[in-house]
Amino acid sequence: MDDVLKFAQAVFAAQPFSQFIGAQLHSVGPNSAEIWLPLREELNQQHGFAHGGVISYLADNAITFAGGIALGGNALTSEFKINYVKPGTGAKLIARAKAKSVGKRQAVCLCEVFAVDEGGKETLCALAQGTIVSAR
Amino acid sequence: MDDVLKFAQAVFAAQPFSQFIGAQLHSVGPNSAEIWLPLREELNQQHGFAHGGVISYLADNAITFAGGIALGGNALTSEFKINYVKPGTGAKLIARAKAKSVGKRQAVCLCEVFAVDEGGKETLCALAQGTIVSAR
Amino acid sequence: MDDVLKFAQAVFAAQPFSQFIGAQLHSVGPNSAEIWLPLREELNQQHGFAHGGVISYLADNAITFAGGIALGGNALTSEFKINYVKPGTGAKLIARAKAKSVGKRQAVCLCEVFAVDEGGKETLCALAQGTIVSAR
Amino acid sequence: MDDVLKFAQAVFAAQPFSQFIGAQLHSVGPNSAEIWLPLREELNQQHGFAHGGVISYLADNAITFAGGIALGGNALTSEFKINYVKPGTGAKLIARAKAKSVGKRQAVCLCEVFAVDEGGKETLCALAQGTIVSAR
Repeated sequence: MDDVLKFAQAVFAAQPFSQFIGAQLHSVGPNSAEIWLPLREELNQQHGFAHGGVISYLADNAITFAGGIALGGNALTSEFKINYVKPGTGAKLIARAKAKSVGKRQAVCLCEVFAVDEGGKETLCALAQGTIVSAR
Repeated sequence: MDDVLKFAQAVFAAQPFSQFIGAQLHSVGPNSAEIWLPLREELNQQHGFAHGGVISYLADNAITFAGGIALGGNALTSEFKINYVKPGTGAKLIARAKAKSVGKRQAVCLCEVFAVDEGGKETLCALAQGTIVSAR
Repeated sequence: MDDVLKFAQAVFAAQPFSQFIGAQLHSVGPNSAEIWLPLREELNQQHGFAHGGVISYLADNAITFAGGIALGGNALTSEFKINYVKPGTGAKLIARAKAKSVGKRQAVCLCEVFAVDEGGKETLCALAQGTIVSAR
Repeated sequence: MDDVLKFAQAVFAAQPFSQFIGAQLHSVGPNSAEIWLPLREELNQQHGFAHGGVISYLADNAITFAGGIALGGNALTSEFKINYVKPGTGAKLIARAKAKSVGKRQAVCLCEVFAVDEGGKETLCALAQGTIVSAR
């Protein structure tokens, strides 16, 4: 997976928005991806938790990478759905996405987003499901 | 609607993430909200278009405000679904959301996100549907 | 639209499940479709209302036809999302779907499902949004 | 789980639509449910596969039961999203749902629907995610 990780990290580094909010592509597998996002005040909504848009960015991007790797190249999120279940709070958010069904041109992926406290304790924060299509 | 707009804009101004990315709550109605986002490079993905996470932020936040106003106070997006249909490109994005069904504690809202070029021409960029719940 | 309606009704008549539950393709437009379903006890869940699965069938099928007509031929629902907002009760259900964005190979459609009482009064029962792909 | 299974099966038996199409509540766990549906021609669409509405019924009902059991009583599906990934064909369909996040009043559930051939081989047919709310 070293080459795949290098390719994926090059794509990730070329996303200005991911850099802007400080996200990191932490790791990838043959059909999975994990993105980390250290939390800071700029990412919050009015109640002091991570904004839903931040959490949906993570889910969107994690399924794009999981699906893109599974499909073997550049890919786009065509659509997704997200359920927020707990506030995004703590030291960082971690999004873990996996392709559950992979065809020639599209993959259906699931994602779990966790809120992680200073001690590393993870709390499920959101669940997402979506379609990734090959950009070729 | 002047008082409602003032209340909504105070809430919007209290969202650090909305300030961070430069979004503006443009207008509200009795069950609707419109958010504008001037585009700039920091908001892009690797192909030079607005990142999907930026578009999903707009949809999420626009339905939160449309539903919150319809429900009469602070509210949260419980879940939503988004279909991306055209690249987010041009001078700005505009998200227009409307509550289509309003109960005591929750509202179901639709949102259209448009990519707007320098001349003001709007192109449908994404469609979203989601549930807003009262935060009381 | 007469030829399109004939084609659509031939496809509809070839769906054993639509016949089994008694649905009718009522009308079509250039990018829309309306399906009627007279209610009867066999279609209910345990509280005496139309089963959610019946309502989701209507939404799924109505967007398939709206999207298929807009795409110009046989089509399949790739994915959709539905929010139930009121019980499915009364004399019949009516699903009205419209393609909101039409590309070469796929369309994104919205659907409203209404519960209609004996006097013809319509109450919004469910909202759906989904992706239709050409079957060619 | 014997009492829970009895309760769940009594609710299931009280769903006329589930009886009408011939579905069976096969088993339940503390936060899960499995529904079986023998396939027959009446359940098909025009291409000879199970109609999407049949598959969405299964997903909807399986998450209702998984979420209802997790929440401790009668429950309703508030909303869900489904991705169809392979044709529903073979001897039967099996829907397996699990509550992934359980609060006081609502649960977020995932569901996998499998097409099962005569020899028992399972093929993933659809993936769903939705919100179940307590009916109390």
